[in-house]
Amino acid sequence: MLKNWKPGEIPEKDEVNGRLDKARARLYELQMKIKEHKLPVLVLFEGWGASGKGSTIGKIIRNIDPRFFKVATMSAPAEEELRRPFLYRYMRQIPEAGKFTFLDSGWMEETTRACLEGKLTDDEYARRIDSIKRFERQLTDNGYLVLKFFMQIGKEEQTARMERLLESEDTHWRVAGFDKWQNEHYKKCRKVFDRYLMDTNMSTSPWYIIDAAEKKWAELQVLEIMVEGIEIAMQNSAHSVPLLQNVFPLVKMPKLQDIELEGKVIEDDEYRVELKKLQKKLGELHNRLYRKRIPVIITYEGWDAAGKGGNIKRITGALDPRGFEVHPIASPEPHEKARHYLWRFWTRLPKDGHIAIFDRTWYGRVMVERLEGFCSENDWKRAYNEINEFEKELYDWGAVIIKFWVQIDKDTQLARFTDRQNNPEKQWKITDEDWRNREKWDAYEVAVNEMLQKTSTTFAPWHILESVDKKYARIKALKIVIDEIEKALE
Amino acid sequence: MLKNWKPGEIPEKDEVNGRLDKARARLYELQMKIKEHKLPVLVLFEGWGASGKGSTIGKIIRNIDPRFFKVATMSAPAEEELRRPFLYRYMRQIPEAGKFTFLDSGWMEETTRACLEGKLTDDEYARRIDSIKRFERQLTDNGYLVLKFFMQIGKEEQTARMERLLESEDTHWRVAGFDKWQNEHYKKCRKVFDRYLMDTNMSTSPWYIIDAAEKKWAELQVLEIMVEGIEIAMQNSAHSVPLLQNVFPLVKMPKLQDIELEGKVIEDDEYRVELKKLQKKLGELHNRLYRKRIPVIITYEGWDAAGKGGNIKRITGALDPRGFEVHPIASPEPHEKARHYLWRFWTRLPKDGHIAIFDRTWYGRVMVERLEGFCSENDWKRAYNEINEFEKELYDWGAVIIKFWVQIDKDTQLARFTDRQNNPEKQWKITDEDWRNREKWDAYEVAVNEMLQKTSTTFAPWHILESVDKKYARIKALKIVIDEIEKALE
Repeated sequence: MLKNWKPGEIPEKDEVNGRLDKARARLYELQMKIKEHKLPVLVLFEGWGASGKGSTIGKIIRNIDPRFFKVATMSAPAEEELRRPFLYRYMRQIPEAGKFTFLDSGWMEETTRACLEGKLTDDEYARRIDSIKRFERQLTDNGYLVLKFFMQIGKEEQTARMERLLESEDTHWRVAGFDKWQNEHYKKCRKVFDRYLMDTNMSTSPWYIIDAAEKKWAELQVLEIMVEGIEIAMQNSAHSVPLLQNVFPLVKMPKLQDIELEGKVIEDDEYRVELKKLQKKLGELHNRLYRKRIPVIITYEGWDAAGKGGNIKRITGALDPRGFEVHPIASPEPHEKARHYLWRFWTRLPKDGHIAIFDRTWYGRVMVERLEGFCSENDWKRAYNEINEFEKELYDWGAVIIKFWVQIDKDTQLARFTDRQNNPEKQWKITDEDWRNREKWDAYEVAVNEMLQKTSTTFAPWHILESVDKKYARIKALKIVIDEIEKALE
Repeated sequence: MLKNWKPGEIPEKDEVNGRLDKARARLYELQMKIKEHKLPVLVLFEGWGASGKGSTIGKIIRNIDPRFFKVATMSAPAEEELRRPFLYRYMRQIPEAGKFTFLDSGWMEETTRACLEGKLTDDEYARRIDSIKRFERQLTDNGYLVLKFFMQIGKEEQTARMERLLESEDTHWRVAGFDKWQNEHYKKCRKVFDRYLMDTNMSTSPWYIIDAAEKKWAELQVLEIMVEGIEIAMQNSAHSVPLLQNVFPLVKMPKLQDIELEGKVIEDDEYRVELKKLQKKLGELHNRLYRKRIPVIITYEGWDAAGKGGNIKRITGALDPRGFEVHPIASPEPHEKARHYLWRFWTRLPKDGHIAIFDRTWYGRVMVERLEGFCSENDWKRAYNEINEFEKELYDWGAVIIKFWVQIDKDTQLARFTDRQNNPEKQWKITDEDWRNREKWDAYEVAVNEMLQKTSTTFAPWHILESVDKKYARIKALKIVIDEIEKALE
């Protein structure tokens, strides 16, 4: 794309000014329409050092009310960020519905720079491209407008700009070492940039190369493409997208109704001995995890009153509180609901070496959101693949992923509900909603079975915890956690 | 995709049968909805020899009324087809709105086979992939559902199937030489197939790999994906797609209002001498074109009464009637309107060595269709790029493309209209519509200027014919045609 790219002719000054006025006014009007349409707009500026990414953003945002946008300058990842998956810090920045986020460089710069510095093998680069394409596709599939600009200047122009900046003490600092390196290795950089642009040029989030040699002209090109992109995106209020075939290897799961619950019990004495032994073991492993910087993600889903809380307690009881966090997941807050549904989980990922336990999870998308109609059919049907892709990112990052389904039968649930209702100390644990959900048992069973079949990948398989006897389930959970961590430590 | 692909577990017989009944019934219902929604569905079956492409299609179509589908078996291209661009014979097969076309292998097989036979260089393969991605994207952008199935069987299964076919005299013929070759070079083929699948796996027209080892199970997978795909596509009644940035080098064009018309005249005597000389020259060149098998495409657009017809006559007057065809383009017939708007031009392409002259063209999309609202704004804005891509295909095929805009001023048009109106012999040439279009002169001028700016590529630039003096325009046209053909013959 870049190699044969030639700048078009710059229009006359009068024309540029006229069109600028028009495009600025239009963007100003559109900000309110974006709000009404709940359209989230992510605008990514990539390009050469000294091509004017920051200053162009500065001009664009003059037309937008500060309540409606955020600008994020993505310099090299911080220590905290390096301890999380590559996409973490970008996912964090995605806008809410109805708002803009402008990124001053992003995942392209991070990736191409790593290439140029020889820090990515060919295989790693290919995997990175896969991740990026999935990330962008998940955003656009979920209604995001993703606008990607590459700010292009020639080698001579770049040299001249840097020299000008270096002349003054006030602007000297703005020329980064990498910019100079780029300038000295312009052709090599262009080749790497070009390959990246081609590898990630999707019709749903295409690249726009901006001739950035002249500032006003650059601003105009960006503004006009933004306005056009927004107008088109707003025409698609609720469009559906093709469902992709699963590409991940799956583990066969039993149907809920076929899971044998009888006889899955443990005697009290044996329980106490086992619990102590297993918790001790887990505590030791936690230290080794920390030293080896392996992140662990444990997730719990299951019927109401199946015993998730008590089960989690027996896990955390074994752990150093500085090294884990439990995330109870209720219905999303407004600022969470306004973003991609995986956002609130991405932002809760542990640092490497840490353990995150999710009490209910992203699987809400294909259970409660599906059954209560909180998302469209296309949304939840697409989610199986989106979730597998998400967990694949975590796996590639090096995480141990342990997913539990806590299983009881309908009678056991009734007994526990009644017990909670009759016991003043436990009454807070039972709500009308629990009773309403119970009425939908059969529908949930269908949804859970589909979920187990479609998301039990070899890298993140589901584990069933038979929990009519809660103690049995706790011991089983501890054993699985220990087992999985030991495998990862080998 | 293929290398690490593992078949999933085949469900129990009862389940397969139950799901088959359901999916068949659903497809039967959907055929009428497709008709209502005017959704065109292109179903492409690719895959290994003896994987059951044909027999699966045979089963699928039992659920569809014969009025609603066509099956096309794309064996190796015929002599006639080889003389046209690679995509020609596929474009010909695309369905009408509301109907299905099933292709028994297609552009994947043709491309991968050429690779395996060493007939495509890396560069040619890359260009082929570009063409294919553009072709599929143009279809989905224009509302087509494109379903792509790759029928997968293992090497042993393929061997066994072919041996079974070879045993009987009646089925012996069904094992083609290429199938045997595939089987003997299974790994090599898989690698080429795999690369192709990855290169063309777009989220708007993704690949579905079908486990074809068991026939009923294969049928079920295809049916379920078809049903799902159709249901999703029907939810998008009028969705808009992002406009892609132009990637082709452009030639700067003047604005219509800046074109100097005065003084562009020729004396009668000079005209006669020149005409004779130029026509003789063109006649000679036509023979050389034919021998060298170079196709030529000449297109005319211009104001009503600008003199297109007479101009074309002076070109064709020089040509051997066996080697050219004039295509007068009026509003599309119903069967043309029901397809991608470029279909009626693709199907009228000349054979190599021949000349096709289009009296009005595909540029109707960005002129009359734009101004009369015959297509959506997103449609005509997208068309500039679609047309450039189309002409790039023609250019890569080796065609000489000569595009004329025949220019007159508004007064000249009025004079000619009045003359036609007052002259009984010419009255057929003037209609109410001409007068109505004349009222929209200014709007047309805007549209034409945008068209000239955006579609004058270096490989298919526009030429302006100043035609207040029709004779001047004819001589100029002949000179340009001769010039362009001579360049191509060099």
